[in-house]
Amino acid sequence: MVNKISMKQYIEKNRERFLEELFSVLRIPSISSESAHKKDMVRCAERLVELLKEAGADRAAVYPTTGHPVVFGEKKIDPKAPTILVYGHYDVMPVDPLNLWVSPPFEPEIRDGAIYARGANDDKGQTFMHIKAFEYMVRTGQLRHNVKFIFEGEEEMGSAALSQWLKTHKKLLACDVMLVSDTTMISSKVPSINCGMRGICYMEVTVKGPKKDLHSGHYGGSVFNPINTLCQMIASLIDADGHITIKGFYDDVVELSRKDRKMLGRAPYDKREFMEGIGVKEITGEKGYTTLERIGIRPCLDVCGIWGGYTGEGSKTVIPSEAHAKVSMRLVPNQDSKTVAKLFTKHFKAIAPKGVTVDVEERHGGDGFLMPISSKAYKAASRAVGEVYGIEPVPSRGGGSIAILAEMQRALHADPLLMGFGLERDFIHSPNESYLLSQLFKGMESIAKFYQYF
Amino acid sequence: MVNKISMKQYIEKNRERFLEELFSVLRIPSISSESAHKKDMVRCAERLVELLKEAGADRAAVYPTTGHPVVFGEKKIDPKAPTILVYGHYDVMPVDPLNLWVSPPFEPEIRDGAIYARGANDDKGQTFMHIKAFEYMVRTGQLRHNVKFIFEGEEEMGSAALSQWLKTHKKLLACDVMLVSDTTMISSKVPSINCGMRGICYMEVTVKGPKKDLHSGHYGGSVFNPINTLCQMIASLIDADGHITIKGFYDDVVELSRKDRKMLGRAPYDKREFMEGIGVKEITGEKGYTTLERIGIRPCLDVCGIWGGYTGEGSKTVIPSEAHAKVSMRLVPNQDSKTVAKLFTKHFKAIAPKGVTVDVEERHGGDGFLMPISSKAYKAASRAVGEVYGIEPVPSRGGGSIAILAEMQRALHADPLLMGFGLERDFIHSPNESYLLSQLFKGMESIAKFYQYF
Repeated sequence: MVNKISMKQYIEKNRERFLEELFSVLRIPSISSESAHKKDMVRCAERLVELLKEAGADRAAVYPTTGHPVVFGEKKIDPKAPTILVYGHYDVMPVDPLNLWVSPPFEPEIRDGAIYARGANDDKGQTFMHIKAFEYMVRTGQLRHNVKFIFEGEEEMGSAALSQWLKTHKKLLACDVMLVSDTTMISSKVPSINCGMRGICYMEVTVKGPKKDLHSGHYGGSVFNPINTLCQMIASLIDADGHITIKGFYDDVVELSRKDRKMLGRAPYDKREFMEGIGVKEITGEKGYTTLERIGIRPCLDVCGIWGGYTGEGSKTVIPSEAHAKVSMRLVPNQDSKTVAKLFTKHFKAIAPKGVTVDVEERHGGDGFLMPISSKAYKAASRAVGEVYGIEPVPSRGGGSIAILAEMQRALHADPLLMGFGLERDFIHSPNESYLLSQLFKGMESIAKFYQYF
Repeated sequence: MVNKISMKQYIEKNRERFLEELFSVLRIPSISSESAHKKDMVRCAERLVELLKEAGADRAAVYPTTGHPVVFGEKKIDPKAPTILVYGHYDVMPVDPLNLWVSPPFEPEIRDGAIYARGANDDKGQTFMHIKAFEYMVRTGQLRHNVKFIFEGEEEMGSAALSQWLKTHKKLLACDVMLVSDTTMISSKVPSINCGMRGICYMEVTVKGPKKDLHSGHYGGSVFNPINTLCQMIASLIDADGHITIKGFYDDVVELSRKDRKMLGRAPYDKREFMEGIGVKEITGEKGYTTLERIGIRPCLDVCGIWGGYTGEGSKTVIPSEAHAKVSMRLVPNQDSKTVAKLFTKHFKAIAPKGVTVDVEERHGGDGFLMPISSKAYKAASRAVGEVYGIEPVPSRGGGSIAILAEMQRALHADPLLMGFGLERDFIHSPNESYLLSQLFKGMESIAKFYQYF
């Protein structure tokens, strides 16, 4: 009987085809934030529709939105059966600095048991696992649930288009659980399932001084230099104890109980290993919290980009008229990103000296969320991952953000389940993003088992 | 008699030719700091040799150096007559941001009585005045001095090549006075002659954190972000009173006497006008000093460029592995730029937290200088400028730096005389650099008169 074949065996049999299919998706430079790649976004969406249909979807199509298109597909089994909605995203981050890539970001290559490409993990690789686990379930006649797929093209820039589209397609997306693979686990030896994620509030600021660039000799020492001023303003946003100084910033932050903090503390953590992993000699953070707490349950503020003045070769002596920064704040559940954006804007304008003007714009935002580990879905996932890895997974709290999930949770009244198979070594968002083949295939197995246990 | 014609008449007669000759120099994109323009540097030097020969130099040639070439030319009249050395530079600053230029930087255009082009003033336009004043003196048979010309191609990047070349060509450059037009006057109604300039110490710093860019969600709040850290370090370099905090920085700064400060205070200054000129609502600077003092007699520290992380379109959530800044310090006479570079390096490394490493490199440096206003040369210049402008010029102290002049002063035992005809409105180093035709021609007249009175 065809259904006696396990997912593991199915993978072995189809390994080359799987990789070729995944590579066909990875080759498309679907960078959502760069307008030059608009057509690549559509191409990528269309390719996913093909793969969903080939895998066994009754229907799948590219849906236009106010931004990049979304892909929706489904297979109906029984109106009374539970419905699983798989969420993924096909857009990827920009690739600069390009010179640091060992192989070109959109020419996937296998080295040392890992696929190297932009999106290899985030989130094309992880999304692909779901298509193949679904294919296995369909082709072996084991599928007992209705399955829906929603793949968006703007996750890396705040999911504005899906957020809009969601409003008029709630019925289409109706489900009992949202299945998402867009996160990491602690390590391949310590598998974990995320039971919460941080929100995000991403701002762009511009400090404007003189109406034109000035000669630094003729004016130096007598005017507000926008770069120096921006540095002072940014420096003042975090105090010596690592607290964010924005007025009202912590008002909605819920302090975790000692018990909850203890549970989180069960995750293995070794300071030396952590530091060696990223190549630093000391770490920092908010006073009174552990590293895992700083990442998992506390908000933070990071400048993700800064620029101003002369940044080329040599030395230009100039006081620039403007300086810019991109500021990302990670939020914890119960903090509202819109509120934080307002607080940030008000604060940043308030601390600007009179000699400059300040523009503050919200780039994207999304709230954090928590999911109950007592749920049926969490339990099924835990059993599935546990069997594949041979050890019960740890419930963890991720520091990253998937802005749209909190919104979908509210709109669809279904909890998101984050079965992520990425590892820190994958360096998503960085040059040489990779995804271990072993994690790719174990992910597929775990998802197939989830279908069986849910 | 041919020598009855005045410089003013000579200009009227030759106006079109003068402009075409100057434009031929302005069209060459001689950006010294960008290696792509290496050949343009040579072309520009060669064009100046042609112009010197046509103007009446006995000899003129391009001399190779360790960097961009220098141009030397001369006309000997009488071994017993005083020798005037004219210094100028043919290199220009980079032109970015290119989109802010009304007309392309290397396609000179006349609008509203001014030439618009990179180098229109700094220093091709001002250098050109000397060639034409010399031509007039030669062709009208009035020249009584020996004249030498030295034009370098690295003034905007620290004059390293001329500094080297100078060591083996002291005899060639021997002179009684150095005549330089590379500065501004207070206004066309308040002409001034610079009697001192600041030195400069230009550093480039890199703050290195994690060995790769990190995801700002997975690590945010737990590591030293190189951008945030760089901002904090930069912010700490200047205290609330506008004092530079680098240890030992002020050790060699000479406090001016009340009398000297009073003399400087004679220059007209209107705060509202100053602020309106650059389009700001408030100004700042070191506590206890006036704006003119902050620019003329006090050192300062300005960040001329900063960059790090994601600076493109959209929002990338990244903790970058590095952040960079270019820091310019303007020094006053008696401060040694090499010493300041060492103090800066030591201080910047000392204030770096343990979680980052810091690279500090000196980009270029040069000392400030003063010249006696009691000298014969200053008096001749003052009379010349006074006659042309109809008002006695004010002796002023410029905030800018011409690094090489202090060095030449020491090597040649001759004082530099800074007859500058630029105006603040020229926006040198910025987009839409310009030079008023009236200043160009009045400059030529003043220089011709200087030859008569010196």
